[in-house]
Amino acid sequence: MKTAIYPGSFDPITYGHLDIMSRAAKLFDKVIVLVSYNPAKPNCFFSLEERIEFVKRALGELKNSENIEVDSHDGLLVDYFKKREADVIIKGLRAMSDFEAEFQMALVNKDLFYKAETIFLAADVTGTFLSSSMVKQIAAFGGDVSAFVPHTIITDITSKLEIKK
Amino acid sequence: MKTAIYPGSFDPITYGHLDIMSRAAKLFDKVIVLVSYNPAKPNCFFSLEERIEFVKRALGELKNSENIEVDSHDGLLVDYFKKREADVIIKGLRAMSDFEAEFQMALVNKDLFYKAETIFLAADVTGTFLSSSMVKQIAAFGGDVSAFVPHTIITDITSKLEIKK
Amino acid sequence: MKTAIYPGSFDPITYGHLDIMSRAAKLFDKVIVLVSYNPAKPNCFFSLEERIEFVKRALGELKNSENIEVDSHDGLLVDYFKKREADVIIKGLRAMSDFEAEFQMALVNKDLFYKAETIFLAADVTGTFLSSSMVKQIAAFGGDVSAFVPHTIITDITSKLEIKK
Amino acid sequence: MKTAIYPGSFDPITYGHLDIMSRAAKLFDKVIVLVSYNPAKPNCFFSLEERIEFVKRALGELKNSENIEVDSHDGLLVDYFKKREADVIIKGLRAMSDFEAEFQMALVNKDLFYKAETIFLAADVTGTFLSSSMVKQIAAFGGDVSAFVPHTIITDITSKLEIKK
Amino acid sequence: MKTAIYPGSFDPITYGHLDIMSRAAKLFDKVIVLVSYNPAKPNCFFSLEERIEFVKRALGELKNSENIEVDSHDGLLVDYFKKREADVIIKGLRAMSDFEAEFQMALVNKDLFYKAETIFLAADVTGTFLSSSMVKQIAAFGGDVSAFVPHTIITDITSKLEIKK
Amino acid sequence: MKTAIYPGSFDPITYGHLDIMSRAAKLFDKVIVLVSYNPAKPNCFFSLEERIEFVKRALGELKNSENIEVDSHDGLLVDYFKKREADVIIKGLRAMSDFEAEFQMALVNKDLFYKAETIFLAADVTGTFLSSSMVKQIAAFGGDVSAFVPHTIITDITSKLEIKK
Repeated sequence: MKTAIYPGSFDPITYGHLDIMSRAAKLFDKVIVLVSYNPAKPNCFFSLEERIEFVKRALGELKNSENIEVDSHDGLLVDYFKKREADVIIKGLRAMSDFEAEFQMALVNKDLFYKAETIFLAADVTGTFLSSSMVKQIAAFGGDVSAFVPHTIITDITSKLEIKK
Repeated sequence: MKTAIYPGSFDPITYGHLDIMSRAAKLFDKVIVLVSYNPAKPNCFFSLEERIEFVKRALGELKNSENIEVDSHDGLLVDYFKKREADVIIKGLRAMSDFEAEFQMALVNKDLFYKAETIFLAADVTGTFLSSSMVKQIAAFGGDVSAFVPHTIITDITSKLEIKK
Repeated sequence: MKTAIYPGSFDPITYGHLDIMSRAAKLFDKVIVLVSYNPAKPNCFFSLEERIEFVKRALGELKNSENIEVDSHDGLLVDYFKKREADVIIKGLRAMSDFEAEFQMALVNKDLFYKAETIFLAADVTGTFLSSSMVKQIAAFGGDVSAFVPHTIITDITSKLEIKK
Repeated sequence: MKTAIYPGSFDPITYGHLDIMSRAAKLFDKVIVLVSYNPAKPNCFFSLEERIEFVKRALGELKNSENIEVDSHDGLLVDYFKKREADVIIKGLRAMSDFEAEFQMALVNKDLFYKAETIFLAADVTGTFLSSSMVKQIAAFGGDVSAFVPHTIITDITSKLEIKK
Repeated sequence: MKTAIYPGSFDPITYGHLDIMSRAAKLFDKVIVLVSYNPAKPNCFFSLEERIEFVKRALGELKNSENIEVDSHDGLLVDYFKKREADVIIKGLRAMSDFEAEFQMALVNKDLFYKAETIFLAADVTGTFLSSSMVKQIAAFGGDVSAFVPHTIITDITSKLEIKK
Repeated sequence: MKTAIYPGSFDPITYGHLDIMSRAAKLFDKVIVLVSYNPAKPNCFFSLEERIEFVKRALGELKNSENIEVDSHDGLLVDYFKKREADVIIKGLRAMSDFEAEFQMALVNKDLFYKAETIFLAADVTGTFLSSSMVKQIAAFGGDVSAFVPHTIITDITSKLEIKK
């Protein structure tokens, strides 16, 4: 029985994230989507509650998501990793600049806890240009993001962006 | 008749920007320099009015700039692209990290509007290390930026930077 | 009237190349596909005649290809550029390593002839992993390359690869 | 029960490869080390038999290698993947240039067979500068490679390199 | 007699910085560690006084640090370079994204003052994933940073981070 | 007294190499230009004798080259480094792909001999697109390389390239 953790800020979740979840769920017995606080991106647009809610709703669009769990954590990833006795951390990679930072993070996590193994999945080719911040920029200008984010959360995303504008 | 849009925050315009404008003007019938709001760089140092004025003044240093127009836009680039019935978006590339982000943006724009084609021009070799933020850093410390920005705007740039300091 | 040159070894032409040709043909009055000898890749698998023939046949799959011409050249690109009084060189970019080499080549060409301007087009998202050498590798192992190369040339490509094997 | 394939030319196997094998063996029920012919590196220094033998001997240095199998294949990786009903392909990444090519290969493999999922593991920090070709270069000049390759194969490697020199 | 300047914000100093200082001290007659204000990272976590104090204390852990001096400067690096009649600027490189920005900075400094030569030293392999911001992130979550920062300053670092949290 | 080694195949020497030599000569008491055999580029176009002769002739164009010596070596760089009791290896960097390979080589050399320190100098901005292979390609097509290689060797370079063609 192998447990994988897929951490992220998911601000908001995109089809790119959902694709990684779906593929990870085929490789491991349990996948924990960990909606987490990221000190490098301290100002999330959506609240933790909203982000968790969006992930849960988006997973509803996925078939075969029985072995995917959603959780949140405020602290070091490796501490959560230990607590859950996980086997692996999962990261999606879109491009080279992603890789650079993620590679560094993977080495740090392994250094903090020798069992904290990270594996990388290449983003689906249609997702190479998809990011949460891109989605927020487009939506803030009234652009159509229906190709990028799960349809069950589009209204929530755009309405909040319009209010804040 | 082909129309090209050259978008940017131009905060402030540098000789690197001017070089791209001049080269684009030889390739297309009309080049629109679009001074735009960039959600990824929300805090411009110079006001929109100043940035437009600087671009206009700098274009005065350029010969054969008759087919270059200056405009501004607050919204999605593709919306402006549609309105002007443009043919192509122009981007200057200095280095690899530029390329990564610009490549992503080009794919998004094409996804938002299938006719929104982007072409890239390589920065002139003397401009590979030239950026608006570098110019602001150097000027803020009283360094000489005359090799980097059009001479007709140097006084305005340095005086404002000194005031803000 | 603007003339663009799209040089390459086209060994063999792929749908990625065809996409660039089609997009370039919308931006410029005339596009010359230049099947050329590349000293950095001296050993083409297909002969010059075959490569030209494949490009011509593939262009038959394209609508609106009236302003696309096919030619070949053995010598410096800038010499051909001068002879044809061209305005611009076109290059497709798939990824960062492409960019590095192409950027260098663009600067060299401009240095050899100051009018030899190069513009870059980002490969279509489905073409980011598509290259002539990848096609040859897959075909050499009997893999299916019908998603990658124009269907009018598939038989020729695979039959020749099988003979050589 | 999840099966992973770790393909490579292993010419020769290094401690970097061994580290990936060991870590993969903890994540999946079975790991198949696939010593394969690589059309992009056609001229292996060691014969297929030697490379397989070296991998087997090196695995002897590893504890907990019961679930690691060694095999070879001449053909498309995805064909072998299908035959073995595998779940995932494993690749070690040392650096960015690795990533670029491996990312492309992963997308191609997925395109050829939609189930052919690839995951990437970051090379151990001490292995970021370790490659089979580096080992051959150093050994060819009589340098000490004992820190880079399993000790059970050092004599074979250096003796063959000296003969060929 | 050659003088090298090693500039940085050192917020806080890490073993990676200390390694560069130690290696630079073997190559040049005098090494000036310049704790400086960086307009690109305006909000240092530790005060200038603390950062200088930390560097000095860390140098105490180093043998053969007689030719290393600590100083601070608020202004253009090249102005300090001229004042001290230095010969070279030293930069440590961890990875590619470092290189990009540092390369640009080196060209700018040379442009501002033709004698302002920069040399780069590759970070020790164990330091490729070590950065001041990583240290702050880990410490902020109560993680163990003793492998990353000189032991004489750990208490100061963690206590301040806890207060601010 | 500090001794630096500047190794390379110099096939042939370019103004980019000469620029690095000149700048290194200002930083160290002695600079040894080491024309070496590179197993990764086994087929030099010019013979070892020619390459050494070209370097010597090019140094004649440089003022203040008294502390620059030319030598050759067939073997591990670190062995030569030890023999000459050198202090540092010098490498010029043009771009990111250079950096990747050179960074790896620097770590290997340090691993083979802990004193074998490498420093990197950024190529002059006009040399970022300059390489020996580019020079050979252009000259092979009869292009003008006078801006790229020392004028005292141009005739020898072009005449040999024409003969081989």
